[in-house]
Amino acid sequence: MIELERLKKIYAERKEEILQDYFTFLRFPSVTTDPSFGKEVTGCALWLADYLKKSGLQVETWENGVAPILFAQDLRAGPERETLLLYAHYDVQPVDPVELWDSPPFEPTIRDGQVYARGASDDKGQCFYTAVALRLLLQELKDLPINIKFLIEGEEESGSAGLFQKIEEKKELLQADSLLIVDSGFISLDRPGITLGTRGIVCIDLCLREANQDLHSGIFGGIAYNPNKALVELLAKLHDSNGRVAIPGFYDQITHLSPEEKELYTFRLDTPYIEKNFGFTPSGMEEGISPIEASTLHPKIEINGLSGGYAGEGFKTVIPAEAHAKLSCRLVPNQDPEAIGNLVRNFLLENTPPSLRAEVEIHPGGGPAFRASPHSRVAKVLEKAYADVFALPIEKVFLGGTIHIVPALEKITGGETALIGVALYDDAVHSPNEHFGLDRLALGYLTICHIIQLLATLPT
Amino acid sequence: MIELERLKKIYAERKEEILQDYFTFLRFPSVTTDPSFGKEVTGCALWLADYLKKSGLQVETWENGVAPILFAQDLRAGPERETLLLYAHYDVQPVDPVELWDSPPFEPTIRDGQVYARGASDDKGQCFYTAVALRLLLQELKDLPINIKFLIEGEEESGSAGLFQKIEEKKELLQADSLLIVDSGFISLDRPGITLGTRGIVCIDLCLREANQDLHSGIFGGIAYNPNKALVELLAKLHDSNGRVAIPGFYDQITHLSPEEKELYTFRLDTPYIEKNFGFTPSGMEEGISPIEASTLHPKIEINGLSGGYAGEGFKTVIPAEAHAKLSCRLVPNQDPEAIGNLVRNFLLENTPPSLRAEVEIHPGGGPAFRASPHSRVAKVLEKAYADVFALPIEKVFLGGTIHIVPALEKITGGETALIGVALYDDAVHSPNEHFGLDRLALGYLTICHIIQLLATLPT
Repeated sequence: MIELERLKKIYAERKEEILQDYFTFLRFPSVTTDPSFGKEVTGCALWLADYLKKSGLQVETWENGVAPILFAQDLRAGPERETLLLYAHYDVQPVDPVELWDSPPFEPTIRDGQVYARGASDDKGQCFYTAVALRLLLQELKDLPINIKFLIEGEEESGSAGLFQKIEEKKELLQADSLLIVDSGFISLDRPGITLGTRGIVCIDLCLREANQDLHSGIFGGIAYNPNKALVELLAKLHDSNGRVAIPGFYDQITHLSPEEKELYTFRLDTPYIEKNFGFTPSGMEEGISPIEASTLHPKIEINGLSGGYAGEGFKTVIPAEAHAKLSCRLVPNQDPEAIGNLVRNFLLENTPPSLRAEVEIHPGGGPAFRASPHSRVAKVLEKAYADVFALPIEKVFLGGTIHIVPALEKITGGETALIGVALYDDAVHSPNEHFGLDRLALGYLTICHIIQLLATLPT
Repeated sequence: MIELERLKKIYAERKEEILQDYFTFLRFPSVTTDPSFGKEVTGCALWLADYLKKSGLQVETWENGVAPILFAQDLRAGPERETLLLYAHYDVQPVDPVELWDSPPFEPTIRDGQVYARGASDDKGQCFYTAVALRLLLQELKDLPINIKFLIEGEEESGSAGLFQKIEEKKELLQADSLLIVDSGFISLDRPGITLGTRGIVCIDLCLREANQDLHSGIFGGIAYNPNKALVELLAKLHDSNGRVAIPGFYDQITHLSPEEKELYTFRLDTPYIEKNFGFTPSGMEEGISPIEASTLHPKIEINGLSGGYAGEGFKTVIPAEAHAKLSCRLVPNQDPEAIGNLVRNFLLENTPPSLRAEVEIHPGGGPAFRASPHSRVAKVLEKAYADVFALPIEKVFLGGTIHIVPALEKITGGETALIGVALYDDAVHSPNEHFGLDRLALGYLTICHIIQLLATLPT
């Protein structure tokens, strides 16, 4: 086993080269959600495939017509040894609003030890330090102590549809003892942690229509049932006065963690941190539920978008022909996305005034919540690896968000699963001026190297 | 007095010339709300001033830096005779969405006896037949039987700010016994009517803010008080379950018409007509109030615009930093726009959850309701003129909408006031494919000529 100090030294010696490759990777505008970037997405995948090949891995490229999936492996440790599947993605969110960036989003720029670029953190940064860890370990050790599979997709930011199809077909190749999703993080460097659960999601489009055209609110105000009015009245019914979802059956399937189970995890929200960085005081919780539990252990309906009538400069006294809302439900274990989507749909349809026509569309690709065991072998390895690297107590947390592919990938691989990564809450992921610390690029490399070596010490 | 048949004949003989001039007038894109059309707005005013001068009127052009106001007069009838002030406007609404027009909005096109163009009806069509009436009467009679003042502005579609300023300054010039606002109409040609009241208006912008940035709804869903949720809950409180405005004091100043007063007007909504033309069944009324009364005699709050978060294609799981609404109140007599605006503002501020910041802005330029007497001399003349022209019973109605300048103009002129015009509900005013019938161009001319001659028969 290579000691941590030696791993750090290896990294330090190669720092310039690592940074150059990282910047090259970040310069590809791999925005798969925007079809006009098709060539750049493919270029990014080709470059990464080449990087992995030159590191000594066997690389397959799985085409799906949208964004190539890369599958790199080194199985020379043999069937008697542990097999670890690592997952990351190379696609990034669009850069809008581009005018809010202080430097061009696809020209990485270092300021105060942070690399500013779209994808610097999510997930090119985390993908890249994983690749660096494999390259440097392979060069140092010649043979890896365990079998490695590295799955990298290019459609995570648009729902992983291509990967969902592919994993069924590639089931045999994806078998693993452990699955690590390298697309996570923690609140700050003094609170390192591993993620053992995510919430699921189902997204819903709602449209209320009345007249066959926009109406003059002078002539028809008082006669027409304004779809904007119907929309706010309908959406106001989603929650009761205690902030609980008021849709019958919404909570029926949920099983709550026992107090003993809760003891296994860290539930701590850093309110001053949120107030300082995000400018608000947590107040959206259901009555009687703590903020951190509300955002991870409980389901939620959010109104992600509202639109109806004229919302530009000045005024237009219009009663719109239609009004729209976009809703998403974050789900917890035992809530089925399709069943919850149908409950919401029925509630919306039943509560729409009879003179309006409601259309409710459930977006495909919603996924269930994910929970990993805190007692698993891999969880224990992660805890030790992080503790060694950070020399701090390691939190075990749940993520309030959703990574669509995780539950399906866990099922297909058959491996023990956890989410790791060294992204921080204030990396401005998905926002202008996304950034990632040079120190964290090194820490990420270090944790991956250490995890691989610790996994080799496990009995299989 | 020139008989109606003779007036029709005079028109018929000049029909080609009238249509050519009408088309020339319509070709000016006089969109004052869009500053890029400044030259065209001025060009339109110049052309119209020239038309009126060539008709034999004395014309003044009052500049206000935005859109010239025209004031044309012929006072040769002398101070012993009736003085009529006519009002119209030559500016038009923007054409968006232009792709929904079947022919170019500023290239008038005749289809099935209808002239399609922006402004064909509102208000260039009505302005133009008034000018034609004056031109043809002057040419036929040499001397007009009454004194005529014709006030034409170019800022009606953006609130008449320039005219509000000017009428104080020009008060003496604007004195009149009667004031006719030629910017009105009726539901269909078999229900001709005159308008003896309008509702007032006050417009309000609402913004709710929470965090200093858009938030990820996975991470912060359950912690943040989503401004979209706060917005729908706040706006849902504007009305009680019977559809009445729930803001304390909103109705306090209102005096209702007595049953005897109601007898003087026609209250009849053509529901099948609305269902056929606008595709909805009236259902937005307060409980116990008929549709036609709800839309003319009662005040109303409408949500004209809603926006918050992501409302485009696909999905973005965002909790927006802010959410917006645009509200307007249609007001009835005794409701003061400023006082009602303040009531609404206070209600919104008081009902905003403490963790959000509400900003409420009351738009300047809201105006009070307007009521004219059904017993006035001018109302009786209008009734007779319309009855002669249409050979049908003449309705006396209220308009649910607002023409900002009317109450102020009535006060300044000191004259008895009513609204007239032959626009129809289905002229697509403010919408794509606005149109006006060639038959109504002639009818409008005829009514103006007839009204002028009938006013001459009144004792002053």
